[in-house]
Amino acid sequence: MKLASYLADGQATFGALAKDGLVRMNGRLPAGIQTLRQAIEADCFDAMRDIAARHSADHALADVRFLPVVPDAIHMFAAGVNYRAHVEETGRKVRTMEDGPAFFLRLHSSLVGHGEPIVRPQVSTCFDFEGELALVVGRGGRHIPEASALEHLAGYTCFMDGSVRDYQKHSVSIGKNFQSTGPLGPWMVTRDEIPDPTKLTLVTRLNDEVMQTGHLSDLIFNIPFIVSYLSRITPLQPGDIIATGTPGGVGKDRTPPVWMQRGDRIAVEIEGIGTLTNTVIDEGDPISN
Amino acid sequence: MKLASYLADGQATFGALAKDGLVRMNGRLPAGIQTLRQAIEADCFDAMRDIAARHSADHALADVRFLPVVPDAIHMFAAGVNYRAHVEETGRKVRTMEDGPAFFLRLHSSLVGHGEPIVRPQVSTCFDFEGELALVVGRGGRHIPEASALEHLAGYTCFMDGSVRDYQKHSVSIGKNFQSTGPLGPWMVTRDEIPDPTKLTLVTRLNDEVMQTGHLSDLIFNIPFIVSYLSRITPLQPGDIIATGTPGGVGKDRTPPVWMQRGDRIAVEIEGIGTLTNTVIDEGDPISN
Repeated sequence: MKLASYLADGQATFGALAKDGLVRMNGRLPAGIQTLRQAIEADCFDAMRDIAARHSADHALADVRFLPVVPDAIHMFAAGVNYRAHVEETGRKVRTMEDGPAFFLRLHSSLVGHGEPIVRPQVSTCFDFEGELALVVGRGGRHIPEASALEHLAGYTCFMDGSVRDYQKHSVSIGKNFQSTGPLGPWMVTRDEIPDPTKLTLVTRLNDEVMQTGHLSDLIFNIPFIVSYLSRITPLQPGDIIATGTPGGVGKDRTPPVWMQRGDRIAVEIEGIGTLTNTVIDEGDPISN
Repeated sequence: MKLASYLADGQATFGALAKDGLVRMNGRLPAGIQTLRQAIEADCFDAMRDIAARHSADHALADVRFLPVVPDAIHMFAAGVNYRAHVEETGRKVRTMEDGPAFFLRLHSSLVGHGEPIVRPQVSTCFDFEGELALVVGRGGRHIPEASALEHLAGYTCFMDGSVRDYQKHSVSIGKNFQSTGPLGPWMVTRDEIPDPTKLTLVTRLNDEVMQTGHLSDLIFNIPFIVSYLSRITPLQPGDIIATGTPGGVGKDRTPPVWMQRGDRIAVEIEGIGTLTNTVIDEGDPISN
């Protein structure tokens, strides 16, 4: 099952992908469940499968505006330098268990949905792409053992970790949190459809040219470790998002560097999940509806 | 005027400090204003002054549990290494405008109110203190000029940036975001009471022993610059919190290092604002009411 958060007729809702569009879930689940985060928290997956089977689509894909998959996630963590090939291109050494993984946080204001414009900020021309697999937490918890970590996931989605490289040199948290630079979506795929995430392949295309190809088997810190590690810090919550890092091929490490420009189309495709596509505008450009 | 967010009879509310306790604001302001963040956004300061003048205290200080000053702040930014004396003790070089300031983010789950226990995590013994001045944004905006930056502040509060130093080596965002490690409060003081924040002095005491003394005049990146810089990244929102960094004297740079232990009392005092005091418990200890 594929689950998305979106605006339909200007109202925030969520639903399941069907052949002919999206089947709305809001209003068909037990009272009080208004968002995908709440549906994940209440473990409504069976009910949602049933609703999706019994209804035809309420909205065509072209008629909705996608929101970040879980727009009200309590936490969003993102791993840095977590693919061997990406670490090598940056000239850094591969982190060991002793070094620990590198994480930063993403603010809601930095995220957008599939199909929405992403914004190259006024203060920088160094706007770079990073395609990533992101995890959606299902059952929360603290001190989750690696052995059962995958059972705590609700599913998987795509992330484009738009990075402002000159500001990232000041501090990672700043370079990664410019407004509307991080698309998340288009939807999450429930865990049952991806029995082994290490078999996934990720491709990032800039204007249809392949810029990054990554194999999830190439992660330095793997998915069970990441989930377990983050749960040492704070209790993970249903709907939390964890981006797993980007493979090699980013714009800043090319000669000459490749920066995203107004009008560029950036797409992150992960087999079995879908393709997250967004177009770059400049800060201050009007956003059409 | 001093404004606090707190639980009274188990209900989240906010109010103004009076001689004999707290005057509740919730229910006495225009409908829809339920939180201090909303009151800041609606610029209700004159109305709150009037309410505070016309009512006696609804709650004694001893009868409430303080929440982080703005519990639902949209953004919380925190500056790293921003006092010359602290940079020198860490052995790093002082950042220039060219280097840019260093910021990280704080999650809501990492914050607590004045008087609440702070939690030394199970996975580390390196739990350190950092006393700080924090800014509360009033009027939001993007690309705020330095010249008018102070006019965008609603007020000032105290912050204790509890830091898990071994995890901070993995990444700053992780070491700074363990659950319930960052007290913020006890209240915010409105800007009119602090005409020149560079004249403020900050003292951190561990079990009544002075560990840090900082003068806000010693900031590397000053308050107007910080506000202006962050507003380049994303529109600042009413109620946003910006911690300004910590002065010298932290535990990790002492010989031998000083780590906070169960039962320790950590207090951050800033003249004209107040004293933020919290006691350390170990993760898993029961929290008494």
